[in-house]
Amino acid sequence: MAVATTNGNAPTDGAGVKHPRTNNEADIAAIVQKLSSYGNPALYVDTEHNIELRDTEVPTPLPHEALLHVRCTGICGSDMHMWHRGSIGPLAVDRPCILGHEPAGVVLAVGSEVTNLVPGDRVAIEPGVPCRKCWLCERGKYNLCEYVAFAGMCPYAGTIRRFVTHDARMCHKLLPGMSFAQGALLEPLSVILHAVRQCHGALSIGKPALICGAGPIGLCALAASRASGAWPLVITDVDPAKLEFAQKFVPGVITYHVEMSKTPIQCAEEIRALYGCGPRVVETATPSPTEYNAPSTVLECTGVESSVVTAAYACRRNGLVMVVGVGRSIMNNLPFMQLSFGEIDLRFINRYSDTWPAGINAMANGNVLNLDAMITHTFPLEQAVQAMEACADPKLLTVKVQIVDDTEIDL
Amino acid sequence: MAVATTNGNAPTDGAGVKHPRTNNEADIAAIVQKLSSYGNPALYVDTEHNIELRDTEVPTPLPHEALLHVRCTGICGSDMHMWHRGSIGPLAVDRPCILGHEPAGVVLAVGSEVTNLVPGDRVAIEPGVPCRKCWLCERGKYNLCEYVAFAGMCPYAGTIRRFVTHDARMCHKLLPGMSFAQGALLEPLSVILHAVRQCHGALSIGKPALICGAGPIGLCALAASRASGAWPLVITDVDPAKLEFAQKFVPGVITYHVEMSKTPIQCAEEIRALYGCGPRVVETATPSPTEYNAPSTVLECTGVESSVVTAAYACRRNGLVMVVGVGRSIMNNLPFMQLSFGEIDLRFINRYSDTWPAGINAMANGNVLNLDAMITHTFPLEQAVQAMEACADPKLLTVKVQIVDDTEIDL
Amino acid sequence: MAVATTNGNAPTDGAGVKHPRTNNEADIAAIVQKLSSYGNPALYVDTEHNIELRDTEVPTPLPHEALLHVRCTGICGSDMHMWHRGSIGPLAVDRPCILGHEPAGVVLAVGSEVTNLVPGDRVAIEPGVPCRKCWLCERGKYNLCEYVAFAGMCPYAGTIRRFVTHDARMCHKLLPGMSFAQGALLEPLSVILHAVRQCHGALSIGKPALICGAGPIGLCALAASRASGAWPLVITDVDPAKLEFAQKFVPGVITYHVEMSKTPIQCAEEIRALYGCGPRVVETATPSPTEYNAPSTVLECTGVESSVVTAAYACRRNGLVMVVGVGRSIMNNLPFMQLSFGEIDLRFINRYSDTWPAGINAMANGNVLNLDAMITHTFPLEQAVQAMEACADPKLLTVKVQIVDDTEIDL
Amino acid sequence: MAVATTNGNAPTDGAGVKHPRTNNEADIAAIVQKLSSYGNPALYVDTEHNIELRDTEVPTPLPHEALLHVRCTGICGSDMHMWHRGSIGPLAVDRPCILGHEPAGVVLAVGSEVTNLVPGDRVAIEPGVPCRKCWLCERGKYNLCEYVAFAGMCPYAGTIRRFVTHDARMCHKLLPGMSFAQGALLEPLSVILHAVRQCHGALSIGKPALICGAGPIGLCALAASRASGAWPLVITDVDPAKLEFAQKFVPGVITYHVEMSKTPIQCAEEIRALYGCGPRVVETATPSPTEYNAPSTVLECTGVESSVVTAAYACRRNGLVMVVGVGRSIMNNLPFMQLSFGEIDLRFINRYSDTWPAGINAMANGNVLNLDAMITHTFPLEQAVQAMEACADPKLLTVKVQIVDDTEIDL
Repeated sequence: MAVATTNGNAPTDGAGVKHPRTNNEADIAAIVQKLSSYGNPALYVDTEHNIELRDTEVPTPLPHEALLHVRCTGICGSDMHMWHRGSIGPLAVDRPCILGHEPAGVVLAVGSEVTNLVPGDRVAIEPGVPCRKCWLCERGKYNLCEYVAFAGMCPYAGTIRRFVTHDARMCHKLLPGMSFAQGALLEPLSVILHAVRQCHGALSIGKPALICGAGPIGLCALAASRASGAWPLVITDVDPAKLEFAQKFVPGVITYHVEMSKTPIQCAEEIRALYGCGPRVVETATPSPTEYNAPSTVLECTGVESSVVTAAYACRRNGLVMVVGVGRSIMNNLPFMQLSFGEIDLRFINRYSDTWPAGINAMANGNVLNLDAMITHTFPLEQAVQAMEACADPKLLTVKVQIVDDTEIDL
Repeated sequence: MAVATTNGNAPTDGAGVKHPRTNNEADIAAIVQKLSSYGNPALYVDTEHNIELRDTEVPTPLPHEALLHVRCTGICGSDMHMWHRGSIGPLAVDRPCILGHEPAGVVLAVGSEVTNLVPGDRVAIEPGVPCRKCWLCERGKYNLCEYVAFAGMCPYAGTIRRFVTHDARMCHKLLPGMSFAQGALLEPLSVILHAVRQCHGALSIGKPALICGAGPIGLCALAASRASGAWPLVITDVDPAKLEFAQKFVPGVITYHVEMSKTPIQCAEEIRALYGCGPRVVETATPSPTEYNAPSTVLECTGVESSVVTAAYACRRNGLVMVVGVGRSIMNNLPFMQLSFGEIDLRFINRYSDTWPAGINAMANGNVLNLDAMITHTFPLEQAVQAMEACADPKLLTVKVQIVDDTEIDL
Repeated sequence: MAVATTNGNAPTDGAGVKHPRTNNEADIAAIVQKLSSYGNPALYVDTEHNIELRDTEVPTPLPHEALLHVRCTGICGSDMHMWHRGSIGPLAVDRPCILGHEPAGVVLAVGSEVTNLVPGDRVAIEPGVPCRKCWLCERGKYNLCEYVAFAGMCPYAGTIRRFVTHDARMCHKLLPGMSFAQGALLEPLSVILHAVRQCHGALSIGKPALICGAGPIGLCALAASRASGAWPLVITDVDPAKLEFAQKFVPGVITYHVEMSKTPIQCAEEIRALYGCGPRVVETATPSPTEYNAPSTVLECTGVESSVVTAAYACRRNGLVMVVGVGRSIMNNLPFMQLSFGEIDLRFINRYSDTWPAGINAMANGNVLNLDAMITHTFPLEQAVQAMEACADPKLLTVKVQIVDDTEIDL
Repeated sequence: MAVATTNGNAPTDGAGVKHPRTNNEADIAAIVQKLSSYGNPALYVDTEHNIELRDTEVPTPLPHEALLHVRCTGICGSDMHMWHRGSIGPLAVDRPCILGHEPAGVVLAVGSEVTNLVPGDRVAIEPGVPCRKCWLCERGKYNLCEYVAFAGMCPYAGTIRRFVTHDARMCHKLLPGMSFAQGALLEPLSVILHAVRQCHGALSIGKPALICGAGPIGLCALAASRASGAWPLVITDVDPAKLEFAQKFVPGVITYHVEMSKTPIQCAEEIRALYGCGPRVVETATPSPTEYNAPSTVLECTGVESSVVTAAYACRRNGLVMVVGVGRSIMNNLPFMQLSFGEIDLRFINRYSDTWPAGINAMANGNVLNLDAMITHTFPLEQAVQAMEACADPKLLTVKVQIVDDTEIDL
């Protein structure tokens, strides 16, 4: 009987994949040599905001690493920031760097210490490799590890290329039937799975939730809220097209179009009205008999100050505003009296920990979580620059753009 | 636009229902008088384990109460215990008592202090009315209130009758499109919603869960686990027919048939194998590399000692065994070393608090939670005794038996 | 054996108090009549920012209320705001109002429904009486009740007067040996007990904590942090005299003098250095090997924006900033990137729930929590205006000013 | 100014210690050679329940390890079990093994990869070295690591010898003023610090707590409960002498003498009476108006079935029974109805994680936590067998017996 395993540690047969089961040792050198003939084009960004595809060497795996053929990498908003702004928060592009951190692929060879993978395994790659020694790693918060080597974040090379090496323990085997495209969605989904867990059960069956922002992260948040049983659901955005997409993506969700001419308080009260909830008590100093109906959990996925402020005003007393995305270092106009009177928690997340196995379980069974519709555009590796340009083009209505490489590798 | 409201406190129009909007006052007396002509047959159990349908007076609501026409009441396993054993735990049938605590109905009149209901409102009735004064009520644990007046638990009259009065605050308006049958399912669902919440988020997207017992509560647990995104799911029972039902109820669930000839350890290891997980470390004193795959949350819904013990052995290290149903006062054979080595929490629940609004939200939108298939048998109020007998008949393969009253009341 | 009881519900003998044990009924009227001869001077504030002592009627208790002789009321910063600003947040002085909400006193008579008190009982009075019906009360968050009747908050009369009536359930019996002065400290302590509980165990044995602000609430936070075992402890203030006081109040605490010329980042890094901790990683984008030493819990007790921002910068990765006091509706300059990168929670509290019994247990046993040194000034009721003026006088170095009434009442 | 640092990672001067600051490399060989002249007597237990002191080789540290002079090791109850029973739970003495896992000592040399220690550092040694690779380590639960190498647990050599090597990251620098004896107490204290944290704040200021068992772990639990502000405190034991000791150890604690002739229910009700609390509701089926006074947290430190059962009966509704010590694999007579009706959590712990830094902070400041009085007997290393025999002698009234080695090592 085919049974879903959770962490993918059991050996798989890799049936249908052409690579031999041979382990590694010195014949890794031969494999690397052989792969060189395929070329290893990589998408670079430099300090002058240029992007280009350049050929690179095929890397050799260390004893604890796997050598992989990257079959798919999704493009993330932070890739666009690296390109256009040259930084995300404190992380700056201070040298030419290969982009990409939403990858899935096939194991081609494994180092001598690797026990959880064999060549031929189809895997999703968790891009951040924590140090496993610092106090944060020791306490289970490896997502906060200050020494993390995060693929695609300068100076660590990303995965928009053909061949990469990666810590084998951060390669998670896909379950039968999962596509590489799905595997590559596990990274953005992981941000949201981590956020949902940090809600500690607040996002649950029949509880109203609000999602701010209908971009890729907001859509993952919407799908995950739905998959957690939260209801009713409202999603906001400034772009009606994104809201229209959201409504098809999760039928039954209520959409709210944010008009920039309105204040956060106005927006918040209009959003609350969608839940059958009246104005907040703080402003009026009079009780709000329908306060219970307001969203008890808000997933803020825009990183835009006015949206964060709207989230704070919209949230139910004793609720939780989970700030998933942060755009600016400093934010103003936070309604502290509103947060204080209502004992509203303001929580923040940074990346994720222990999310790939759960994401694989959920996604391998489409009825739990199906994100396929998010993949609106696909480009071959050779057109990686065009893929980035597509993301930058507002007319294209992209949601998730993925770069794929279907080159047949014969070892 | 039709919007889901959460607590149903906003007035509804009650359109399509025949009852006038008149409030109460002294004309309540007239209403009670008028209703008397319909009779008020009630299902009694006595101290001699007899059940019978007897006519009773139409009750008059107190100022904070509603007078309701009970349209549907589900039969619960505890009703069967009250009948056959004469008690559940410390609660004994020490006088003739009306059974029934899974009700839904229509408001016919409301007392002078009631503000959240009007005649014609279709509601689910939360059977336990807490004291709202004790320290447990004050601390939000009204489910543990020692002074609770719980309908259908001696000496408080239950709802298997035509007309009842009930604290209006414990009557929760159904959303448009919900049936009385669905409303009556909110009580067993509430047990599980409370249990899921007490898991504090442990039952979440892509996390493996185990449900012990495929009776009505186990099936609610299965549906709620699925609606929370937990996956993979395994459900156990001694009765293959129940497992077959479960498999149709939640497609994709893996079933495990408990054979009484096997020890809890044997059962647990077979269950663990269904998750791709090997034996537990405590017995072997050697590491279990697939321990991660074991169910991190177990919802124990049988109250049978061997099942509780199996749950403890099957649970993942650092997991949670939530004991939903308790049958016996004392349990033996608890594997403390297993619980201790693995830091496995053993938690317990008693009833529910604040679950009806969430249940209504989830159920009104069938795609979140649809329990309709659980209602396998329906009897009119006049055949309440036969309904109880049906429940007691193993050949009938009942899941949830409901007693309905479609008498048209004209006020 | 004299044993500490927790909620003071057991009857006490009231020995040593002159009042007869007579319950209430119609002789309450006689008692009220008799008390009138003592006068009932009350401290009023009006919409023109005037305060004055005016005589008032002796109130008559409702059936669920007690009539009390207020023996002591502490003056709170919010009393000063009511006087000078005419409001706190949304709560405005829109009519003449009696101030005072930190009371302790003696029960003189009890209404007919009261079961937990007898005349002669010495009690601390919890000033806020929640509605016990709304969803927040029902969920154990009575501190957030929108319908709360809070003594001393317009339009509800406060306790700076001789005789008051109050919900008997909100009167908590003092344990033997406790003074009225200690009883009156339970209100500010309760704010902190609630805050500490909302830290969910983060403030615990041997964990470093930071307290911002050395006013009365900050000092309670310091004492409670110490009583929770947190260590090392640092407290900040702009006023060196307050820091000097803090150092005597809790020996071993490290003090940090906030100079207004420094930026929050400068202050935060100097504070972190006191824990043996280097700069934050967000600014430098390089790991901070001593980050572990930074305070994992910050209790922000000033409500001043620069202090909140400093708290956010000083807090350890994965730490918690608990905002206890809020001064302004809107705050700017919040370092979201710092909070986000570090997954630092920003939590807020509003008042308290279920704190008096624990406060009484802790304070009755001086070695758990002794706040006596905080009471720096005491005035008789007749000099209530002078007491308020003393609070307003920075030269006096007041910490907690209390108004007492030792009038001997003979019933 | 001398400031308490939290994790002891900052370099110390090691002043007053005779060892040179030289790091390691090949001169480690010279150091090992030199140390051989001092001998390395070690306390062995064998499969025949014999203990004896035998000379062993001086071990050579690996690159990530430190070589230490063990200055003090406390004897634990589990050492006695290893000796007398030959096992603890699944851990069996299947070959001769060196005992001891409560150590403190001085660093003599460090391997080439060690950055947190220098020779001369005075440290407490955390005995369990986790694998840092398994899913439990990755999730911050290294205490549950199945691959842990735990000093003194067969087959891993313990610390009752002169010279040991140990993972440098598990050596925690003592703060100035701390003795080796105090350092060696950090291990039993850690069990309790972990237990207290797993209470998630339930053990807090002014909340009543019950400690079952007045042995070394029970006394640590008592001291930690007191240091957390819990009050009132009751401690139980079958031995009046231990209760007498407890009363001196933490003044104000109430003691309860468990008579074996009484049932757990009897004991529980007598214990509850000490808190001013009446019988439990489950048995009587009538409300218990003083239930609030019952202990909301019970720390069960005996591992004896009757005590666990008593704990369950004594605990307050909605309380927590934390099972710290487990003696037998299987337990019977668990009052499930009591646990279920009251929603009482039954939690378990296994060892500890991230407790040494907090323990050092707390203990270095005697006013937070002073356990010195627990050290009732001290033996030199040469009399290690006698130390074990002393522990086994009930007439000696030992609490914590420590084996010390004050041999002056000159490098």
